[in-house]
Amino acid sequence: MAIKPLQDRVVVKMTEAEETTKSGIILTGSAKEKPEVAEVIAVGPGKKDVTMGVNKGDKVLISKYSGTNVKLDGEEFIIVKMDDILAVVD
Amino acid sequence: MAIKPLQDRVVVKMTEAEETTKSGIILTGSAKEKPEVAEVIAVGPGKKDVTMGVNKGDKVLISKYSGTNVKLDGEEFIIVKMDDILAVVD
Amino acid sequence: MAIKPLQDRVVVKMTEAEETTKSGIILTGSAKEKPEVAEVIAVGPGKKDVTMGVNKGDKVLISKYSGTNVKLDGEEFIIVKMDDILAVVD
Amino acid sequence: MAIKPLQDRVVVKMTEAEETTKSGIILTGSAKEKPEVAEVIAVGPGKKDVTMGVNKGDKVLISKYSGTNVKLDGEEFIIVKMDDILAVVD
Amino acid sequence: MAIKPLQDRVVVKMTEAEETTKSGIILTGSAKEKPEVAEVIAVGPGKKDVTMGVNKGDKVLISKYSGTNVKLDGEEFIIVKMDDILAVVD
Amino acid sequence: MAIKPLQDRVVVKMTEAEETTKSGIILTGSAKEKPEVAEVIAVGPGKKDVTMGVNKGDKVLISKYSGTNVKLDGEEFIIVKMDDILAVVD
Amino acid sequence: MAIKPLQDRVVVKMTEAEETTKSGIILTGSAKEKPEVAEVIAVGPGKKDVTMGVNKGDKVLISKYSGTNVKLDGEEFIIVKMDDILAVVD
Repeated sequence: MAIKPLQDRVVVKMTEAEETTKSGIILTGSAKEKPEVAEVIAVGPGKKDVTMGVNKGDKVLISKYSGTNVKLDGEEFIIVKMDDILAVVD
Repeated sequence: MAIKPLQDRVVVKMTEAEETTKSGIILTGSAKEKPEVAEVIAVGPGKKDVTMGVNKGDKVLISKYSGTNVKLDGEEFIIVKMDDILAVVD
Repeated sequence: MAIKPLQDRVVVKMTEAEETTKSGIILTGSAKEKPEVAEVIAVGPGKKDVTMGVNKGDKVLISKYSGTNVKLDGEEFIIVKMDDILAVVD
Repeated sequence: MAIKPLQDRVVVKMTEAEETTKSGIILTGSAKEKPEVAEVIAVGPGKKDVTMGVNKGDKVLISKYSGTNVKLDGEEFIIVKMDDILAVVD
Repeated sequence: MAIKPLQDRVVVKMTEAEETTKSGIILTGSAKEKPEVAEVIAVGPGKKDVTMGVNKGDKVLISKYSGTNVKLDGEEFIIVKMDDILAVVD
Repeated sequence: MAIKPLQDRVVVKMTEAEETTKSGIILTGSAKEKPEVAEVIAVGPGKKDVTMGVNKGDKVLISKYSGTNVKLDGEEFIIVKMDDILAVVD
Repeated sequence: MAIKPLQDRVVVKMTEAEETTKSGIILTGSAKEKPEVAEVIAVGPGKKDVTMGVNKGDKVLISKYSGTNVKLDGEEFIIVKMDDILAVVD
């Protein structure tokens, strides 16, 4: 079963976040949102004034509280808007 | 009795969500909205700057808290805006 | 005494909602707004970027919490904006 | 002492609301705002994208919580914006 | 020391409000803001899409909760935006 | 160490506010924000639709709750947007 | 591992804030946000109507509550929008 995101939406899948597995500590001493490292699974066609700046396979940083969780065929994904993707990680 | 949605609204009907019937567990350990798999029943004509990107019969993912519940002739529907449809599922 | 709605407003009158009279049960197990079936009594002239998509006599679905109640000559009406009308019911 | 409303503002004076004086009962069983029947006293010149659709002497319906109360020479008025006037009553 | 308001701001000075000095009673039985009668002291140059519709010396009605209090050389003023002035009183 | 404000921001430094030093009393009997007299230290280049209407050395009135405090080399400054400056005081 | 910010985002790294290390006192007697001195690490390409006004290596002031914390390879960064950068410090 495949997900085809609409408009400027992007389907991502969380990866093991390196910054937390190394230390084993979750940083919570701040009111700022903890970012998440994710892999891009599918990219929507974009919409007016929004061009899609990521590709399938990219590692990206997204804000923790953005997007919608979705589980299909036993796998969990997050659907975010293009604008919720903060940066690409090489 | 038929529902004809106005403007950029879409009438959908919830299907048995596969991701929950398989496990039988509702995932609540997250502040993110649980998405819903739905079937498109009727599609509005669209409006200025919004073209309708789904067709009758499509399986779609919508955010849980979007739209308005409506019951007609014993069946329950949800009326959502086109923009509340996150993705099409094949 | 007649009500002439201004701009994109529509005067509607609630009808006996068929989906509740048949069962006699009010569905409250959801955070979503319960829609209301109403009959269109009077339609405003529309305004810039809003054309009126309903006619006097149409049966329409509106969100429960939209509009303003008004009672004139012993009858109760609701004045809603065109955009608060979700769908036409045949 | 005369009030000359600026821009798209309208000065109205509440009339005896017929829907409440007949029954003597205030309807409060609803989260919706109770409308008010008012008489138009003075009309501003309008502003960009807003033309004034009422005239001095018109009976109008306004939302209860819109506008600002003002008392001059012992009389109470309400100053509302044109867009807060829901309908004209004949 | 003179105040020169910027853009679409107006400096006003509260006058003895006639509607309260006559009766000596403050009307509080309403959720609506109590208006204030004020005299225009200085008028800003206006800004894009806002022309200044009042002159020095005009008596005006402003909403109670709009603007910023300022005290200079022992006198109290209020700096409001042009749009917070509801009406001119003759 | 010099601060160069970006876009439509202005760096100001609070002066001894004359309206409070004369009386020695802080006026708090009002829900309105207490304004502050400040001296302009540095002016940003402006941005689209915002031209900078103050110059270095001007005495200005700003709203108490606008802007961001910053301390550099032992001196305290406030960085405000041009639109948060209410008036120039001569 | 390198972070490439998207659109008008900027990756910064907090420096030892001179205004606090000199005195050793955190100023909290104000409702205003405490600014932070940061060094620019990477600059996004900009977006429509936003040109990037800082360069890699610049010392900048940002509002404390803006942006998203991110930790990569043991280093902590903050991703902010260009508009959250208040000033450049020389």
